[in-house]
Amino acid sequence: MRQPLNHPMRTIMTPGPVEAYPSVLRTMATPILGQFDPAFVAIMNEVKDMIRETFQTTNEEAFVVDGTSRSGIEAALISLISPGDKVLVPAYGRFAYLLVEICERAQADVVILEKSWDGVFSEEEIIEAVKEHQPKILAMIHGETANGQMQPLSKIGEYCQNNNVFFVVDVVATYSGVEIKVDDWGIDMAIAGTQKCLSVPSGLSLITYSDRVKKEINKRYQKELGLGDDCRNDNPISSNYLDLTQLQRYWNKDRINHHTEATSMIYALHEGLRLYCNEGLRERARRHEIHDRAIVEGIKAMGLELYGDEATKMPTVTPVIIPEGVDGESVRQMMLDDFGIEIASSFGPLAGKVWRIGNMGFSSRKENVLQVLTALEAALIHHNVSINQGVAAQKALNIYHELGI
Amino acid sequence: MRQPLNHPMRTIMTPGPVEAYPSVLRTMATPILGQFDPAFVAIMNEVKDMIRETFQTTNEEAFVVDGTSRSGIEAALISLISPGDKVLVPAYGRFAYLLVEICERAQADVVILEKSWDGVFSEEEIIEAVKEHQPKILAMIHGETANGQMQPLSKIGEYCQNNNVFFVVDVVATYSGVEIKVDDWGIDMAIAGTQKCLSVPSGLSLITYSDRVKKEINKRYQKELGLGDDCRNDNPISSNYLDLTQLQRYWNKDRINHHTEATSMIYALHEGLRLYCNEGLRERARRHEIHDRAIVEGIKAMGLELYGDEATKMPTVTPVIIPEGVDGESVRQMMLDDFGIEIASSFGPLAGKVWRIGNMGFSSRKENVLQVLTALEAALIHHNVSINQGVAAQKALNIYHELGI
Repeated sequence: MRQPLNHPMRTIMTPGPVEAYPSVLRTMATPILGQFDPAFVAIMNEVKDMIRETFQTTNEEAFVVDGTSRSGIEAALISLISPGDKVLVPAYGRFAYLLVEICERAQADVVILEKSWDGVFSEEEIIEAVKEHQPKILAMIHGETANGQMQPLSKIGEYCQNNNVFFVVDVVATYSGVEIKVDDWGIDMAIAGTQKCLSVPSGLSLITYSDRVKKEINKRYQKELGLGDDCRNDNPISSNYLDLTQLQRYWNKDRINHHTEATSMIYALHEGLRLYCNEGLRERARRHEIHDRAIVEGIKAMGLELYGDEATKMPTVTPVIIPEGVDGESVRQMMLDDFGIEIASSFGPLAGKVWRIGNMGFSSRKENVLQVLTALEAALIHHNVSINQGVAAQKALNIYHELGI
Repeated sequence: MRQPLNHPMRTIMTPGPVEAYPSVLRTMATPILGQFDPAFVAIMNEVKDMIRETFQTTNEEAFVVDGTSRSGIEAALISLISPGDKVLVPAYGRFAYLLVEICERAQADVVILEKSWDGVFSEEEIIEAVKEHQPKILAMIHGETANGQMQPLSKIGEYCQNNNVFFVVDVVATYSGVEIKVDDWGIDMAIAGTQKCLSVPSGLSLITYSDRVKKEINKRYQKELGLGDDCRNDNPISSNYLDLTQLQRYWNKDRINHHTEATSMIYALHEGLRLYCNEGLRERARRHEIHDRAIVEGIKAMGLELYGDEATKMPTVTPVIIPEGVDGESVRQMMLDDFGIEIASSFGPLAGKVWRIGNMGFSSRKENVLQVLTALEAALIHHNVSINQGVAAQKALNIYHELGI
């Protein structure tokens, strides 16, 4: 007989997937509804409303792609890109290259604006590059989990709006940890995931897009053959599953059959969005800032250094430079095996050089911060690393006590 | 304040999504593990094993695509199809046209073998068509939920194997309701979903493929740019998200970072597969046959007629002809609103003409069968339809009592 799951519990302080809210987990256990049951359609409509609220947008289109974050990113890009279209991708970390990968597969003409991974671009640099290359689409990452940097975005969108460029932003690593102002920032398409600051399990991607995008992608709509052959297109979107013109018609009042919506994940998302809306967008951002400060000050108090420009560090990830001569994976392994606490390594040029401590959603709370600091300290002492002992947790506690937390 | 979910409970007798096993729902509420946590990797490996066991295959590749069933179907087809490749699709119902839709978007040269929806092809007809058209790929549906027909498959695969044709079969509507013999039937790629007879919520697709397919798709592998630019391809798969060569490397011992696996859905799938393996493949098929017989005999006892060839009817769906002059949607609505029981309508030429009663997974049990028969009878009486009253449930009860159930 095969045995049921009975795995260890973890304190997860990575940049995702992070711990899910207990009520999100419980809500997933609610029995199934049919996909066109009026009770389920009502839940889908509430989810749409809360996606709009949390993206701070009045966009009509705001719904879910049934896949992990990158399914939403791919849906956004391939629905907008026709072969040969020019896309500009400013890259200051690993995930920009995922955008490039997707654009290249969609046969776009991709221009990459590259820089070192230790900081972000100035908004002016990006606007200048848009002027120079005149792309159809500017696609970029708001927060790069690989290096913990966060790109300021407040001015770029306005330039794009005024110059007929579509501004597509991956906010997967920042959404619901910091405020995302889709309308104020002039973002045409924003894509987020569930498994980071929303603290819902991985498996869905959230997307919203402007009427301008909607008009553009609807030019490529074709009705699925299983539903009739009376509406074909000579430039269809390459994917059926990730075709936003199909998904939009499934999620709006037309309810055109497409996939079978992921019932339990939608329940989980409903609960995660509800918790976020009820906590308040500003209040949740503030909570992440406080715990980020406690992590950063605790790490520094130990004598460790952060990677990258601190002025543009994401509040949801802290990249810590692995001290010279220390086996970073051995320290991580000890934290997991002996303390049950997970922190992350990094990618590409930062692999083996940087640990990443996440600070996301339900994981962003006092006991997790104190546990990660004390466990890291103990693991470093065990690895004979010379650090300031006994001060990291005290530093964090002082910050909390000053705030009455 | 936004309120938590509190929706009605339903008895779901549609062809999916159906009721999930209670222990599947509970297992989803297990706390999150990191995607590369050894405890999670162990769960993924058990899932692979159980996919192999339930598909009755020794294929090395057997894993999950993070999306609903059609994400797996699309991943299978687009990974195998290069632009211009010839694909033969025998169509005896709605979902064959989904295959055509996906193949056309992948720029295949598609040949459709069409027939009326009230029966299936003989295997010889299909083999003859393969001989005539000499496609690279033969893609077909095992069970068509739209009309409840199930295509015999035992001889076609051998011909394909001997003639260098890839045999791709969508078993979404049959998997785990009937036995699927991937190796015996010579299937190169089989794709299933979670939300039907496995009685796991919608959101994942199960896939297995032969070494022959693996060799073919690996010709198109390219390393994702975010992980290095040292392995590009001049004929890459059009999607990154649905690229099986990437997914295969994420699911095998290489554990190459791709998406963030859908943690809670994998827990649910693990439990659903475990229940299936422990029940036994033959035993589960037998259970579906018994409840199918009770539904069919009950429906006939009422004086209603089935749609299509009964000799090739799927045991997991029963298509019932809506009696002349009856508003089928009004009957369905009454069953849902007053009895809390959901049955399905149909698609295309059968829309408004056929109701579909599902018999899948956890929903395939005595009380559900008796409830759907009695509720349908009451709703028909309320709609002034002339039927044989009081006999449907008795007929089903007799079948159960004879078997000591």
